[in-house]
Order: sequence, then structure tokens, then C-alpha cells
Amino acid sequence: MKTQRIAGVLSPVVTPFKADLSPDPERFVRQCRWLLSQNVGLAVFGTNSEANSLSTDEKIELLDRLVGAGLDPARMMPGTGCCALSDSVRLTAHAVKQGCGGVLMLPPFYYKGVSDDGLFRNFAEIIERVGEAGLRIYLYHIPPVSQVPITLALIERLLEAYPGTVAGVKDSSGDWNNTKAMLDQFGKSGFDVFPGAETFLLAGMRHGGAGCISATANVNPAAIAHLYDTWQAADADAQQKRLDEIRGTFAKYPMIPALKAAAAHWSGIAEWATVRPPLVALTRDQAASLVADPTQRGFDMPGLRG
Amino acid sequence: MKTQRIAGVLSPVVTPFKADLSPDPERFVRQCRWLLSQNVGLAVFGTNSEANSLSTDEKIELLDRLVGAGLDPARMMPGTGCCALSDSVRLTAHAVKQGCGGVLMLPPFYYKGVSDDGLFRNFAEIIERVGEAGLRIYLYHIPPVSQVPITLALIERLLEAYPGTVAGVKDSSGDWNNTKAMLDQFGKSGFDVFPGAETFLLAGMRHGGAGCISATANVNPAAIAHLYDTWQAADADAQQKRLDEIRGTFAKYPMIPALKAAAAHWSGIAEWATVRPPLVALTRDQAASLVADPTQRGFDMPGLRG
Repeated sequence: MKTQRIAGVLSPVVTPFKADLSPDPERFVRQCRWLLSQNVGLAVFGTNSEANSLSTDEKIELLDRLVGAGLDPARMMPGTGCCALSDSVRLTAHAVKQGCGGVLMLPPFYYKGVSDDGLFRNFAEIIERVGEAGLRIYLYHIPPVSQVPITLALIERLLEAYPGTVAGVKDSSGDWNNTKAMLDQFGKSGFDVFPGAETFLLAGMRHGGAGCISATANVNPAAIAHLYDTWQAADADAQQKRLDEIRGTFAKYPMIPALKAAAAHWSGIAEWATVRPPLVALTRDQAASLVADPTQRGFDMPGLRG
Repeated sequence: MKTQRIAGVLSPVVTPFKADLSPDPERFVRQCRWLLSQNVGLAVFGTNSEANSLSTDEKIELLDRLVGAGLDPARMMPGTGCCALSDSVRLTAHAVKQGCGGVLMLPPFYYKGVSDDGLFRNFAEIIERVGEAGLRIYLYHIPPVSQVPITLALIERLLEAYPGTVAGVKDSSGDWNNTKAMLDQFGKSGFDVFPGAETFLLAGMRHGGAGCISATANVNPAAIAHLYDTWQAADADAQQKRLDEIRGTFAKYPMIPALKAAAAHWSGIAEWATVRPPLVALTRDQAASLVADPTQRGFDMPGLRG
């Protein structure tokens, strides 16, 4: 892995499926190349990527296609945290081997009410079994979905045991107080905090944040990356307000189908709307309302075409 | 698959791990053979099997070992419902190929608040992709853990679309009213309802239930199977009371580590206590209290030794 730390805006890249629900590696590579060209990094296999609707083999195949297509692995932070320790180890080791800049790691999320001891042991086993000094783990705190939180006490314990390897967190709690607590408590220990939405991009940067990892970076990458680059500029608050409005439009719908409906519309490729069950695509009316929203004026996703 | 329907008491067989956390196929085969000898069927890869801490490859390997060892696949109902459609299809197809009497199917459990439409589509895709007339699916309703329920409306829709294939349910809601509603609504349509604990074995049998699938059948198989066989006998209520007391002792502890602590004690094989993270084994004191409980008097698990 590269010694340069990942920072800035990353997209949990939506995974394109063909009509038969198999992943479409060509469209995936095209989407990722376009995002990189917009100065957005690749948090592939995140929640919005439907990563947990993909098998480990499918994830490995897609990651290999990205690297094989010449995309820079140092800009990649694939999600490698699975329910099964054996899957997490296999996927994480593969990401390291491919030179990924880091990995984003969910806790095992089937059992509820598990202890910090058990979660510590999960991450410790992965780190020790992968056994690579270059491994950089970003913990993935998304309690509304995983229902298994990454507590401040757990982070403290992991940082003490594996400094350097435990490199940061994606905080998708949606709770600024939690993000701020992570920044205050660990921001000075070389622990990078990425809010899980651009909603807290500016607030995060003003408190020492590392950028953000956001669903809407799939569809609005340049503007989000621009705020990251210019967060100290006079118009930063105005930029944040505009980003919030655009995100607000998507948030009126189930997020993943909405992102894919936008991708289908702006690319002209209807297949982009396909989601794997248990998700359901937007209805025709929903998709039409979404792309007709005034906040979508000026949108384009030229990199998705072709 | 056999045309004979699975009925009676099944155990979500605990999965033995070696000290290095890899599954121990020899001990697994031995445990399964003993359970069959106690008249208990094999719901391998259930919640209490730590199935979601195993990769798909590991589950396929363990199932193959059971069948290869000559255990009757008609008595097996492996858990094959995964988060990823591709995993569910692969594992279900393999179970059918091996001649399993049925499969126990969790809904995809990462995304929360998904619609019945999305869940219907998940099960429908699995059924159609597997494409085997002999497939028998038992839906797995365990909202306290999966957080994704199998509603009565979803069952109705699946039964209408796939009669015969959708063969029943394991209801681990812990809510007798829900189990009774399933029995009342679907019991006469050739849909077999298995309460998810022996707690409701007798009540279930009195309302047309098919048996039960219970964690404690791992450690107390003969007595639970005996109540199933003799539920119309005069001492049925007394038997139920005794089963409840024994289960009550295990329920004082985290269930899976407690089952494994008992297996370690009664087999004399300390490695039996091993769980994969995020679970944590009982402490030495907890394990000692568990096996010293008066309800454990007369316990033995001779089939685990050797």
C-alpha cells in the first residue's frame, strides 16, 4: 500500500448491474474512471454500492477489473468488512495485495448487542491474519443500517493496539455530535475522520476532518470535491448550502435506487437503474420527478456514457 | 430432494471450531450423527450455528462432509439465505444437489426497512434461478436478530406464487401470537410452522405445528424429541415445564457460547468452547455455573466424545 494517506471526497461507488442482475464490469470501470477525473476517490463496496448484495468472489472480480484497467489503487478504499471473519480476511488481504490505499471495514453485522470485546477481537484477527504493515483500516460506523456501532471506547482500544493500521473512520451516524467527538478525541492521533455525507463536509473540515465519503458523490462529484478544495474560501457556506439542497432531493427517495435512476437518466443507459433485491428500483414517476427537480438543473454525467 | 416433508425437532447445529478458528469437520460430523441418533434433524447453518460467521465456501465444505460421511440429507435443512443473492442461489442450489430435505432461508439482512416487494423478489429470484421442482424453502423469521421480518402478507404472496416450494417457516419471533397467526392462516395450506424454540413446541403441536427448531436441541435433544413424539400423552405439560427449566438455564447466558460451553464440558473437549468473533466465549466462572446448575443434572453428550 502507498504511504500517502487517503483524503478528500470519496464515493461509495454504485455498482452497475446488467438486466440479469450480474455486475457490469465495463460500466463499473467507466463510472470509477469518471469519478477519479472529478477528483473523487473510490470507496467501492460501500453501503451504496450494494456491497452486501455481492458475494466475495464478485467483489474480488470487480476490484481486479478496476486495477487491471489502470485505475490508481492508491485512490481506492474498498469495503472489506463482512459478517464472516473468513470473508473479511480474504477480501482485505486481496485489497492490500492490489495496493489499495485503505479499506473501509464494517463490523460483522448479523448478531446484535455484541460486546466491544467481540468486535475488538474481530478487527484484531483480521489485522493479524492479513499481517501486512501497509494495511490501512477505516472503521465504518453506520448504526442505522448495521445496527452494530463502533464506539469511541472501541476505537481507542484499536488505536492503542494497532496504531497506524487503524487509520480512520467513516461516520455515517448522521449525528454531528458523534462526528465531532471522534474528531476531538482522535483527530490528533493520525486518525482520519470522514463524515458519511457531504452534509458535514464543511463542519468536518473546520474541525480537522479528512473529507467525506458520500452517496451523492456518485452523481454530484465535482461540486462536492470543489468544496473540499476550497473550504476556506469566502463562499464555502454558500457551497455547502447548495450541496445540501441537491442531497435533499435525493433524500426524498430511497437513496440507492435514486442514485441509479439519476445515473440511468444522465447516462442514457436504462440498465443503470437496476438494483439487486431486496432493493427496488424507483418507479417511472419517481425517477421522472427526481430528475425534473430544480436542484438537478445543470447536472450531467458524461463520463457514464459510451 | 425427497418428497417426504421434514417434521419433528431440528437443531440449528452449533459449528465446532479449532483453536485457529477454522471449522472442525470431524467434530461437526460427530455432533450431527449424535443428533440424528437422538431423533433430531439437522438445521445446520442456522443462527446458533454461527452460519453468518462462515463463508459460503466453508458452508459448502461442511455440508459436503456431512453427506460424504453418510448422514441422511433428507434430515437436513441447511440455512442458505445470505445477504447476497448470488450466495443464496449458490448455496441453495448446492443443498438441492446434495438431496437436502429443505433449506432454511433468512431474508437478506443488511438493508433495513426494505419492502415486501423487494423481499418477494429476493425469494422469487432464488427459486427461479435454482429452478428445481424438489426445492423446499422454509422461511426464517427472526426479527430480533435479522431486523428484517417475514410478514404474513409476504408469506401469502410467496405461497400463491410458489406453492409446494415455499414449504414452511421457522418463527423465532419469540411471540406466540405471531406463531399462532401463521398456523391459523397457513397451516392448512401445506405450510409447516416450526416455532424457533421448544418453548412453544407443545402449544405449536396443539395448533397443528410441525415440530420445532431450537438452539437447546443441541444439548438436550432426546427430551425435546420425546415431547414431540408424545405430545398427546398425559405428561406432556410436565415434559414442557421441564424443557422450559433447562432452556431457562441456558438463557441466563449468551446462548451460543453457553451451548458450546456445555458441549465442551460434557464432551471433555475444551476446544468445543471456541466461538468466532464477534461472539465471545463464556468466562470460566460462567461456564462452571452453567454446568453446575441443578437443571443440568443427568445431562450427558456421549456422542460428542471420541
